[in-house]
This record gives sequence, structure tokens and C-alpha cells, in this order.
Amino acid sequence: MQSQPLLVTSLIDHAGREHKDREIVSRWADGSQTRTTWGAVGRDARRFAAALVKLGMKKGDRIATLAMNHAHHLVSWYGSAGMGGVLHTVNPRLFDEQLVYIINHAEDRLLFLDGAFLPIVERLRDQLPSVEHFILFDAPAQEGYLSYRDLIDAEDASFEWVDLDERDPVGLCYTSGTTGNPKGVLYEHRSNVIHAITEVQPDVIGLSNRSVIMPIVPMFHANSWGVPFAAAAVGAKLVFSATNDAEGLCKLMEDEGVTHSAGVPTVWIGMFAHMDATGAGYGKLQRVIIGGSAAPRAMIERFMKAGITVSHAWGMTETSPIGTMGKRPWNWDEMSFDEQVDIVCRQGCPPFGVELRIVDDEGRELPRDGETSGRLQCRGPWIVQRYFKGEQDAADADGWFDTGDVAVLHPDGVMQITDRAKDVIKSGGEWISSIELENAAVGAPGVQEAAAVGVYHPKWDERPLLLIVRKPGVETSEAAIVDYLKDKVAKWWLPDEVVFVAELPHTATGKILKRQIREDYKDYKLRSLAEA
Amino acid sequence: MQSQPLLVTSLIDHAGREHKDREIVSRWADGSQTRTTWGAVGRDARRFAAALVKLGMKKGDRIATLAMNHAHHLVSWYGSAGMGGVLHTVNPRLFDEQLVYIINHAEDRLLFLDGAFLPIVERLRDQLPSVEHFILFDAPAQEGYLSYRDLIDAEDASFEWVDLDERDPVGLCYTSGTTGNPKGVLYEHRSNVIHAITEVQPDVIGLSNRSVIMPIVPMFHANSWGVPFAAAAVGAKLVFSATNDAEGLCKLMEDEGVTHSAGVPTVWIGMFAHMDATGAGYGKLQRVIIGGSAAPRAMIERFMKAGITVSHAWGMTETSPIGTMGKRPWNWDEMSFDEQVDIVCRQGCPPFGVELRIVDDEGRELPRDGETSGRLQCRGPWIVQRYFKGEQDAADADGWFDTGDVAVLHPDGVMQITDRAKDVIKSGGEWISSIELENAAVGAPGVQEAAAVGVYHPKWDERPLLLIVRKPGVETSEAAIVDYLKDKVAKWWLPDEVVFVAELPHTATGKILKRQIREDYKDYKLRSLAEA
Repeated sequence: MQSQPLLVTSLIDHAGREHKDREIVSRWADGSQTRTTWGAVGRDARRFAAALVKLGMKKGDRIATLAMNHAHHLVSWYGSAGMGGVLHTVNPRLFDEQLVYIINHAEDRLLFLDGAFLPIVERLRDQLPSVEHFILFDAPAQEGYLSYRDLIDAEDASFEWVDLDERDPVGLCYTSGTTGNPKGVLYEHRSNVIHAITEVQPDVIGLSNRSVIMPIVPMFHANSWGVPFAAAAVGAKLVFSATNDAEGLCKLMEDEGVTHSAGVPTVWIGMFAHMDATGAGYGKLQRVIIGGSAAPRAMIERFMKAGITVSHAWGMTETSPIGTMGKRPWNWDEMSFDEQVDIVCRQGCPPFGVELRIVDDEGRELPRDGETSGRLQCRGPWIVQRYFKGEQDAADADGWFDTGDVAVLHPDGVMQITDRAKDVIKSGGEWISSIELENAAVGAPGVQEAAAVGVYHPKWDERPLLLIVRKPGVETSEAAIVDYLKDKVAKWWLPDEVVFVAELPHTATGKILKRQIREDYKDYKLRSLAEA
Repeated sequence: MQSQPLLVTSLIDHAGREHKDREIVSRWADGSQTRTTWGAVGRDARRFAAALVKLGMKKGDRIATLAMNHAHHLVSWYGSAGMGGVLHTVNPRLFDEQLVYIINHAEDRLLFLDGAFLPIVERLRDQLPSVEHFILFDAPAQEGYLSYRDLIDAEDASFEWVDLDERDPVGLCYTSGTTGNPKGVLYEHRSNVIHAITEVQPDVIGLSNRSVIMPIVPMFHANSWGVPFAAAAVGAKLVFSATNDAEGLCKLMEDEGVTHSAGVPTVWIGMFAHMDATGAGYGKLQRVIIGGSAAPRAMIERFMKAGITVSHAWGMTETSPIGTMGKRPWNWDEMSFDEQVDIVCRQGCPPFGVELRIVDDEGRELPRDGETSGRLQCRGPWIVQRYFKGEQDAADADGWFDTGDVAVLHPDGVMQITDRAKDVIKSGGEWISSIELENAAVGAPGVQEAAAVGVYHPKWDERPLLLIVRKPGVETSEAAIVDYLKDKVAKWWLPDEVVFVAELPHTATGKILKRQIREDYKDYKLRSLAEA
């Protein structure tokens, strides 16, 4: 057999040759809309590569982008790949010190940005010594800034891709970990291509040349979950929006005949609200991928009742990111609606290429019995081996990468996240899921918000402490909440104590800041112990 | 990213782990039926590998099978792969001298066979010195023959796959070319895996864990078109039949809920006849892949009117075999039924991984304009580089493999075979498709069969001669036929002469033997020249 390497440039060559008239739609930050095609993106990518070479870029150099989803950003990915560059998608939502850290750590030589992020760059550019040029994607050149359009317009499309090995790096994305400095995950041509052709499978995203996919997940979040590569592999139409306002997204979805979309739950909450207020519909939407965090059951039911296939995806920057994807099992039609929803609420199954296992704290593999939970590990050809500039592997000698999640593996292959490893409450050698306890507690009358953390116990090691924020004007009590939980969780999961607080600390994205709570309550003495 | 190799053993490991209860159904030569699962096939494959090692097989050794489609044959593929063997699927329909040639050329050390092929082996075994053991797949041991069941039963499933590189060979299949000795195509782990995950794409076969696929194409025809590997990648249910009688296939299709099938046109002609005679239906059939030779338009229309998606596949043993696959283009719904049928009648599009081009006799690339026809060439990671034991590459320095077909490439990426290269009539530097001329001629009143060949012409190099077998009892004439053709083909395609013959020579599979006709008419002198 022949030895053609698996290259990202082959994806754009394929799309540009076999799907040249299929469209790429961009809605820009100012609300205007433009259309291009896979054929034109292929030609522009060659112009972009030529421009990078003219700016002195060499194979292996890092090129940063600080940009939302649009066709110019897409061109930069493929063009950078074709001259051997490593495209570093920077998340503009990071804190300033993280932005400075990762751009310096990556030693980015160029920074392409959307005009919307000019204030960030203006604020930080003095702290970014490696960056030789700042280039505006969507605005004319100005003092201190080149423009994408000028660079592209100065080149023709005759650039020949440089020689590449399939193991050459092509992309870089930093994890915004909650502790320590962000860590860089270096994607390779091979890993991106295998991930792309896996993603188009019917049991993953299910993309064909007839699909119209609108990735709402930003391109700086694990390559927009790989969608811009998968779409090229099959010639799907891509619909990008540089802003994620519900009205704009709903209109795009309807106007462009979007069949597939992918995003985090919060985006859909906003779109549902807009639909309820205006009567806007789903258009031709067939399939929705939800990741980032778990979708509420009610959201899943709403999509399903509208005849839309909805799938939970689980993954991380370290997994390119597809680790598992919800799929309809072969006996789907024999299930009741509620059974179907139960399945969709879980995190899905690994496609061919990903291996999962759960282990205990000593690294011993645990059974896939649908009950035992353990630390989730994974391995495969699109999973991280070592962080960028890391001094040691992130995976163990057998390739197992510890995800930091705690999960149950069901006998039918379905994976179910039960907690983050660091949030698990370890009681008497058994694990209590803080997430499940919280989810149960927020159902109790009078509870607005709940957080469960483990606190020291001399006999059990840890026992659950439940913090509750009351709903304004609704009566509740510790006894009432514990009583409510009795038929919702195992008896030994019941909190030893319930504490009412005025508020809970949150992260910038609205998640409860468990680390802070654990810190605040690390010396908390349970009442039962004080009494004993 | 991690460096896991792409291995055939990973396919069966995945299926055995993630889809362990999904069924494999086998209907045997005696009409009996058995069921197993991906989990059990995975365990049996390890037993099979252990048995091969016990028989002295080593990495790289060739293991032959002379067998139809069934679960034991499937086990032998994966088991052989896991001990580093090269599974050589022998086509039992070859002539004796070809069978002897290829088994000796491959130096097969073991030969697994179905009882149905005992007469072949009895006849030839003395001429097969490399074969150390003959082993019956579906019958007990007897004098001179071991049995598959005994070998498997003697082992447990604890065998550990040997260390493998993704470029290691795993399969061998000989082309039954019309000239010269058969040539062996050596498949590799990597090529089979990339081919498998490509094949499950919606625009190729479109397989999910909910699919039930019955490959009617035999496992000795280019790995049953790769279906047994693709099915493992997604956990599809496999339905095998060791015999291809229309009644049995129709019953299996209905009983097992077959959703996908793949086979040559003749199989469907038989099944249609059975359906017409008995009222049997399609069951849950959704999608049919037709390859091997072109499906008649009426067959395509019949499937489409029944709501079944039908696709032409084009490929060869040398292309693993998927070269192109018919797909519904994105503007399908806007087309009339006849336009849709026109699209399906063509040979489809290359999936990501295959590159196609057409060239003239000097190797110059020709335009993809939907009109120009040229020699079809292809390249990609599952296309042959060099035949087994070949002394030179089968592909040129840039990887282009000449398929021997003549085709037109349409601007939308669709490929259309117009002739075999050696059957093309070359007139004045332009090409006349003998197939199109014949297809047009058989539509003329009174014509039963037609063959077009090029004969010498001093000015035009070649001009078409049309041989016609008359329908019994129907009048026709040279003038009537030429007149009929006038609005069917270009003027310069009209045959210089029409010759009525009593019969035409055919191959064993019923195709017109063009080579023979060309030989018979090589010195034919056109009447127009004799007159001049």
C-alpha cells in the first residue's frame, strides 16, 4: 500500500477539489454576512501560507489567533498548516496574566486578532516580546497593526505546501486549568486527520456533504471540537458566527438551513428563551451536540420532543477533544421515551480509536458494571502524550491519560461522568459524588443552590457537608432537606450536616468554585464530632 | 499526541469491548443458521491466533482461506492478524491453474476451506507443496484434513496479540486479471483501518451501531469490500450467507432486519425475480451498494422507487477496494427523479483519502469538465504501491496508479467510467467509448447483443466496427441500426460498418470477451476502404 501521510493540508486539498462550490458563511461582529466556498478557502490558504513565509515564518513556528469563528480564521488554520506552522488559538476570555503567560510560553511570532479584541492587545502588547506583528483579521491596517486582507491580496494561490510528516505539530491549544499555569496541548497532522474522519461517523457527529453545520463552540475551544476539519473531510457547509447572541444564531440557523450544531448548554438556554419570546423555530436542525458541561434533562427532552437528535459529547483539550459521544444504541426503538432520555443524559460511548477505563486510587482497573465509579483514564491516537515543553509524559507508560473525572462505565459501553476527581467525597474507602448530591439537593423545596464538599472525619476519613443557599422567602430546614434526600441518594451519602449560607463563590463562567469552598471549610469541625 | 498504531487487531478489540453483544449471523452451506457476537468473535480470534502459533505459524506467514462468508471465516481474519499472519483469501471460482499458481506464489502454509470446496482441494492438493495443513471450517476432521472447531476448542482466549507495526502486512488478495498471471495485492494494518473508518462515513456506506449489514459480495473479493472491518469499527450487526441463492438471501434480509447490503448487480436481478414471484419484500433495507459492474438503470430506479438509497461503488482489488462511492449531493432534493437517477448511474465521488485524475496517453492531466475522457488514475493510503513480490512499483513516482479504466470527471467531483482503457476506440486522436456505443446499439429494434471494436483505418488510426447478434425473428439492417444511432451518439462515433454475426464470445461470468473479438477482427478491412 502507498505511504501518503495523513495531513491537515490534504483535508483542505480534498475540500477545495471535490467540494469546491460548497459554502462557508460568516456572520461578523458588526452583523454583516459574507459567503465563500471550500474552493476559495483552499486558494486563500495558499495565499496565507505565502504571506507567512514572506513575514519570515518557518516550519514549527507558532502563529497565534485571538479570534472568534469566521472564514478568515479558518483560512489561517489551513494556511499555517501548509507552511509547517503551528496555529495557536488563544482564548480571549482568559485573564490577562494567563494570556501573557501562554503567548510567552508558546513564543508566538505573529498574533492575528479580531478588532473586538484590540483593547486586550493594546493592554498587553508590551508584555509580549516574542510577537513580531499584530494583524487584524476583520479591519484595515492601522498604526501598529497589519491587516489580513492586505497580506492575502499581495499573494497568488500558487504556493506549494511544504514537505510535512504526519507527526509534525500543526496546532496548539492551552487548557485553562483551575490550578497552576495553563498547559499547552500540541495537535499533530495525523491526530487531527484521524479525529476528523472519526467525527463524521454516523455515531459521532454524522456529517455528509449535505450537512450544514454551525459550530457555536469557539474555534479556540479545542479546535471548535474539530468541526472545521471534519467539515472539510466531507464537504459540509460551514456556518460561522463571530458573536453568540441568541437572536443572531436563531436567524442564521433558519436562513442557512443549519442541520447540525455544537455548543455548550448555556447557548441553548439563551436560544430557547429567544424562541419562546419570538416563536422562532429550529429551521432544518436535525442534530445537536452538547458538550463542555452536562445538559439539563429538560433541555434534552425539549430537543427530543422537537424530533432533533441530541448527543452529549465528553472530552477535553487533551483529547482533541472527542472522548465519547452519545449515540442511539441499536435497541433505541424498543425503549420508552424516558429510557431514551436516560441514555442521552449520560456521556456516550468512545468511538473506535479511544479506549477508556476506570481505576481506583492505586491504579487498579475497576469493573464496567454500571455501578462502580473510578478515575476515568483514556488513551488513543488523538490523546495527549506530553504537554508542550513538558519535561515528562502526561500519560503513563501504557498510554493511559488520567482525565481528572470520575465515571461509571456501563456494560453496554456507555460512560457516565459522576464527578471531578478532586470533588469526590471519600468516605470509608467508598466514593460519594458531590455532583449527584448537589443535583439531588437543588430539587428540595426552598433550595436555590447547593454545594457538597468532604470534611474531615476521624472514622470515615471524609463525610459530606452540604452548603445551601435558600430561595428568598421560602422556608426550609436542615431536617427537611435531609428528609427530602432520603429516597434520592444512598443512606450513607446523606450529609452529616447542612449549613445555610448567604451565597456561594463562583468562577467567571458561573460554575461553583469548589476549590474555594474546600479551602474555606478545610478545618470545619462537624457538629456530630464536637458533640461526641 | 500518542503514537498508537492503526491496527486491525484494534478493530476487533474495540468491537469485542464496546459492542460485545451485537450479533454476527451466519447461514451455512447446509441452510442451518448460527449466531455469535462481536465479543465471542474477539475471544475466538485469540483462540485462533494461539492455534496458528501452535501449528508453527510465524509473523509474516501466509494463511489461505478458500471459503464463503461466515463467522468462522471472520474469526480467521482477526485471529491471523493478531499473530502477525497474512490472511490470503483465495477465490474458489478461479480456474485450477490459477488456484495452483497463486497458492504457490503466496507460499501459503495453511489452507482453511469450506466443505463445499473439498473437490477443488482433492483435485489440486498434490500441486500445493507449501501447504502443510488443510483445515475444514465447517466440517469435522477427516483423513488429511484438520478441523477449525478442534483447533479453536483446544485453546483459551488468553493469547496476547504480537507486537505489530501499522505498516505490517495483514491480508493478501490476487487480482484475476484477464491477461498474464494473477497479481497479489498486499493489504496492511494501516490501510485496512483507514479504509474501514472511511467506509462508515454517511457519504460512503453510512454505518452505525444500529446498522445491520449483509455483505453479499464474497469475503474473497477485496475483503468483502472491507465491510467486515468497517462493521467492527462501529459495532454493526453482520449477516453472512455462505450461499447466494435469492430465496435464502431474501429470507435472511427480512428475518434479520438487514438495513444495508452490498453486492454485484446479478445478485439483485435474482432477488428481484424471487420478489416478483413470491411477493417477498425488502424488510428494513435502507441502503444498497452496487459494485463489480454497472447496475442497469432499471435496477437503480426500482430501488429508488422503493425508498432505498442505492449507490454505485467503483474500485478494484488494488484500491482496497473503495475508489469512489455514489452519494446524494447537497442539492439532491432540488433535482427531478430522472436527474437523481442520472447521478446514481455514475460511479460516485472519491472519499477523503482517494485522489483521482484523468490523463491522456502521454500522461498529461486532462480537465475535469464532465466531457473529456481519459485514463483514470488514483492514489492514496489504501491504494497499491507494489504487487506482492513485484520487482517494480505499480504506481508511478508521484503515487499515481493507472486503473485501466477510462473515465470522465465531472466538475462536481462525480466520476463516470466510460470504458476499459483497452476497449477504447481511438479515432483521429479522440476516444470513442465502445461501451457507450454498445449500450446505444442494444436499444435498436431487432438487436439482441452488440460489441464495438476499433479496426485499422489509414487516416483515423481506428474506426468503430459494430458486431450485432440479431433477435430471433426480428428484421433489421445495417442502415436501420446506423439510422437509429444517429441521435444517440456523436456523428463521428457512428460505426463505419455493421456486421451481423450468429454469436459473440463470452467470459465465464457472461461478459463479452472483447479481447477475443479484437483478436478475431484485427486484420479486418473496412468495406469503405476496399471500395476506395
